[in-house]
Amino acid sequence: VPAAYNLGVTRGLLRADDLAFLDARRVAHLATADAAGHPHVVPVCFVHLDGRLYVPIDAKPKRAAPSALRRLTNVRERPEAALLVDHYDEDWRRLRWLLIRAQALVLVEGDERDQALRALERRYPQYAAMGLAALGLPVIALRPTAVRRWSASP
Amino acid sequence: VPAAYNLGVTRGLLRADDLAFLDARRVAHLATADAAGHPHVVPVCFVHLDGRLYVPIDAKPKRAAPSALRRLTNVRERPEAALLVDHYDEDWRRLRWLLIRAQALVLVEGDERDQALRALERRYPQYAAMGLAALGLPVIALRPTAVRRWSASP
Repeated sequence: VPAAYNLGVTRGLLRADDLAFLDARRVAHLATADAAGHPHVVPVCFVHLDGRLYVPIDAKPKRAAPSALRRLTNVRERPEAALLVDHYDEDWRRLRWLLIRAQALVLVEGDERDQALRALERRYPQYAAMGLAALGLPVIALRPTAVRRWSASP
Repeated sequence: VPAAYNLGVTRGLLRADDLAFLDARRVAHLATADAAGHPHVVPVCFVHLDGRLYVPIDAKPKRAAPSALRRLTNVRERPEAALLVDHYDEDWRRLRWLLIRAQALVLVEGDERDQALRALERRYPQYAAMGLAALGLPVIALRPTAVRRWSASP
């Protein structure tokens, strides 16, 4: 178990079984809201590192400039988010989800952003292939404040 | 094409290709926010009918009483939601999502609720097996106000 995992567990929110579930899922759903409270949700790639989660603004083609993406403007207006990681299965006894409420901030530079980008490249070969870490894009950092877990079969 | 589909299209928000994508997806992600604007997100089953979408409060075991579920208290405090339907694929050229912003309201009884419950039973054999429509549970009705689409390969 890497030291970073132990730190995450020590911080008391994400347990070892949560981290194993996070590792097994490739996509999560990030909910944010703007200053007025209008809710928004997008599918995101993510990585966890040292008790935090990181969501990149990647180089997939978007209509808007990265800085204008709703998820970024929302986090700047209201620095919080809810990240949901779930497994859907037609056998509903296998349904499971993990909801992480978090403080959110946008990292536009610095060591933490760079480490997160490298971790994202390790987790997603697609990011490594596009050279994500060299693109100078921001990352959303999520510091968990509360975790809820649900599974159909305890 | 059922008449209900045409009505949905006529209302100008959900197009025929949106409805086909919705039909192909079994789970969506519903974002809401409470009166203070704190964002929330849950995985949901859904059905579309006559230009609206319906999300049941089902009989899967939850810790809280149905009426206390965050998604319900949020919609009562702030009658809006964002519903995301997406496809994840390791081949990122196949990524696609549809984001539906909507007015949201909780239906606790009435014809519209009953029709939605029957449509949910038709779409999900799991709901039919549990007799969802006879359980007297509420349904969240979503009336789309804006739709955004994204796909990696136009």
